[in-house]
Amino acid sequence: MTNLFQDLNTSPDTGERNLWLLDRPGLRIERIVSTGQASPPGFWYDQAEHEWVVLLQGAAELTIDTPDGLQTVHLIAGDSVELPAHRRHRVESTCADPPTLWLALFWPADSP
Amino acid sequence: MTNLFQDLNTSPDTGERNLWLLDRPGLRIERIVSTGQASPPGFWYDQAEHEWVVLLQGAAELTIDTPDGLQTVHLIAGDSVELPAHRRHRVESTCADPPTLWLALFWPADSP
Repeated sequence: MTNLFQDLNTSPDTGERNLWLLDRPGLRIERIVSTGQASPPGFWYDQAEHEWVVLLQGAAELTIDTPDGLQTVHLIAGDSVELPAHRRHRVESTCADPPTLWLALFWPADSP
Repeated sequence: MTNLFQDLNTSPDTGERNLWLLDRPGLRIERIVSTGQASPPGFWYDQAEHEWVVLLQGAAELTIDTPDGLQTVHLIAGDSVELPAHRRHRVESTCADPPTLWLALFWPADSP
């Protein structure tokens, strides 16, 4: 299985890179490598699955549309955030050097 | 939420340390910090849940009782292993310096 820290392939020509590490009933695990990318203006993720994401390298800023209003979240290596299904969020910025390395977990909103 | 890389609390007096980072229907996430511990002789993990574990720091050796026989798996930082429910396994050794840091995910074997 792919080593999480190897083959990040962050050449200047490549965009954000997404690798599925595991895809099973009940759980999908993605490695995401960002090099400065951000969500387009006005774009919001609105996902049917639950997500938990941990930042392993680099840094990022998210905006999350919580029941208490918009929250800005600054993430450094080791920080994680839980994003329940349909918790709208966007990526405001990611660090390019070092590349920003995410481990993102997705599981069904209707888990027993 | 706890930063994955902080407060590892690896004083000589403490044993293996386990912190639940998330516990939801469908997914449990644990941070485990090992400092040289191993499974007792003859002990095997035999779990009702599926597991996927990634080693983020340190090193470890597992033995896994696979359908093809016993397999020895050496893990370095970034390596991961999938352990389906009831795939018997044991920890033969873990690195103490630096402490061995695991991120372990557990999800139900009966996921839809």
